[in-house]
Amino acid sequence: MASSEDDLIARHFKPLAMDPGAFGLTDDTAILKALGQDIVITVDAIVEGVHFLPDDPPDTIARKALRVNLSDLAAKGAEPAGFVMTLALREMHDAWLAPFAKALGEDAMHFGCPLLGGDTVSTPGPLSISITAFGRVPEGKMVRRHGAKPGDLVMVTGTIGDATLGLDILKGGPIAKAMANDAVGMAALIDRYRVPQPCNAFANAVREYAHAAMDVSDGLAGDLAKLCSVSGVSADIPLADVPLSVCAKGLLASGAVGIERLIAGGDDYEVLCAVPQRNAERFLAAALAAGTTAAAIGAFTAGIGPPRFLDADGKPLTLRRLSYSHF
Amino acid sequence: MASSEDDLIARHFKPLAMDPGAFGLTDDTAILKALGQDIVITVDAIVEGVHFLPDDPPDTIARKALRVNLSDLAAKGAEPAGFVMTLALREMHDAWLAPFAKALGEDAMHFGCPLLGGDTVSTPGPLSISITAFGRVPEGKMVRRHGAKPGDLVMVTGTIGDATLGLDILKGGPIAKAMANDAVGMAALIDRYRVPQPCNAFANAVREYAHAAMDVSDGLAGDLAKLCSVSGVSADIPLADVPLSVCAKGLLASGAVGIERLIAGGDDYEVLCAVPQRNAERFLAAALAAGTTAAAIGAFTAGIGPPRFLDADGKPLTLRRLSYSHF
Repeated sequence: MASSEDDLIARHFKPLAMDPGAFGLTDDTAILKALGQDIVITVDAIVEGVHFLPDDPPDTIARKALRVNLSDLAAKGAEPAGFVMTLALREMHDAWLAPFAKALGEDAMHFGCPLLGGDTVSTPGPLSISITAFGRVPEGKMVRRHGAKPGDLVMVTGTIGDATLGLDILKGGPIAKAMANDAVGMAALIDRYRVPQPCNAFANAVREYAHAAMDVSDGLAGDLAKLCSVSGVSADIPLADVPLSVCAKGLLASGAVGIERLIAGGDDYEVLCAVPQRNAERFLAAALAAGTTAAAIGAFTAGIGPPRFLDADGKPLTLRRLSYSHF
Repeated sequence: MASSEDDLIARHFKPLAMDPGAFGLTDDTAILKALGQDIVITVDAIVEGVHFLPDDPPDTIARKALRVNLSDLAAKGAEPAGFVMTLALREMHDAWLAPFAKALGEDAMHFGCPLLGGDTVSTPGPLSISITAFGRVPEGKMVRRHGAKPGDLVMVTGTIGDATLGLDILKGGPIAKAMANDAVGMAALIDRYRVPQPCNAFANAVREYAHAAMDVSDGLAGDLAKLCSVSGVSADIPLADVPLSVCAKGLLASGAVGIERLIAGGDDYEVLCAVPQRNAERFLAAALAAGTTAAAIGAFTAGIGPPRFLDADGKPLTLRRLSYSHF
């Protein structure tokens, strides 16, 4: 009686649907309880050949699909509540689906974000995964892109530019050649591209200490420009203050990569915040307590226009592009 | 400064995002207020070449993408509250996007289901649209597939099988030949395929009078089998009682189509309910009041197993397939 589509769902995804609101994936819809809070909704899709590579392992594809959404929830100060997924597949292979579903289930458990439902469709095109994730925030407390004020510090978590270096390595680009003798470093950068590390434990601090926030997904320069635009401010960022990993610093020093590539590359999935000076120390301490790091990289300024990235002489860099665009 | 992806969103979709929770599409996430109710979540994707044809008009594609989800909300007794959309496009053409967005906005307004957010991605593959829609029901009152009891009437809204006939016509199949002289009839059937007509005004009655419900999207036979399976019952359906349109009746009488095709074809987007006998009259009256029709097509029976579709002699039909499956 059961079609193979139903079989697929029962075999691979039903074990993930432990939340009572998922009804064991036996119904058409799911239920999410608001628990007196606002429901925060984010939707992000990843497409084979665009957001991940055709030979990326299925477990990393699953983690990336969920985590790009968890990154949005973290940046908005929301606690993960659950997600639904559309999976568009060319064909059904257990050898691919089993590790995909296993990793998705592990992440769902780890981040407290259960699978609530989904739709599985066939496509003649690339594999793609669209996830809508839900979070909860106290009423009216979602952290907006709007709200940065002149004088607020520009703060960012983690390090910037590693994922774009990892992508270059996977594509056999110049970074792969420059790092040919550093297998450990290459693996770390590839991991940054394939598996974002959203820090959802930091969401409370974002809500408590930041005037405005967003996640860095399309490139620091472009995303900061968006935050500035919505908030009606600009920003000055001394390039020396942008936090880089040891690998990125080495590649920059050797001339294998330019700073523009690092700040305009995508896939960082860090949190970018406007933090009033009085909250800076508590914000930094909260980052450490949440298992990440944060750094002040400059300040928001009065005026309208994209942020200025300043070199060692205080001269603004001219950027050819700010971030990734699909079209 | 704005990328063409941002331009696309601002030009075509921002005018649809009138709900305050959408923040004018200037943020990473949206907010949905629960208003003390349960949030009902449904997700359905449509893929070019699978759920719609490459030359279907953009306005009908938009309406179908949203309405397949509205159909789920209606069947679950939920009031539409909003939706988010992932749009995967090969390229950006205003000539396609403008009518798509216009129709989507009209439907969002008509059904009271505003656009809250979305993601636009490029794909080398087929155009696809994944929508996650939200509804509200009083706490604990979502109508489940579970709950049908032996003796309950099997009731269905509208007519069954028209959309699969419309698809056959669009593909130039045998129905197109059989109806060559009936341009009006053909247009009506094509419209049933392209533009579902969910009756969201009927949701209250489903909640009030039905023990169990789901929408008919993959074919009456298969969907009824699913409802029976989850409820732990079976059903007897005299085929003569399945409501057919005048066109479908004519094609059936002339032998141009068999009953199996009509009850196993997909895309009906009607509501299938288990209604206790005592509620039958009120249920039928509520359907008329909501602008649709409903019909009792048989009864749920004790026992386990797929429903039996009975011919004029009371003999069960042997179905080769119950419904559409993607794999």
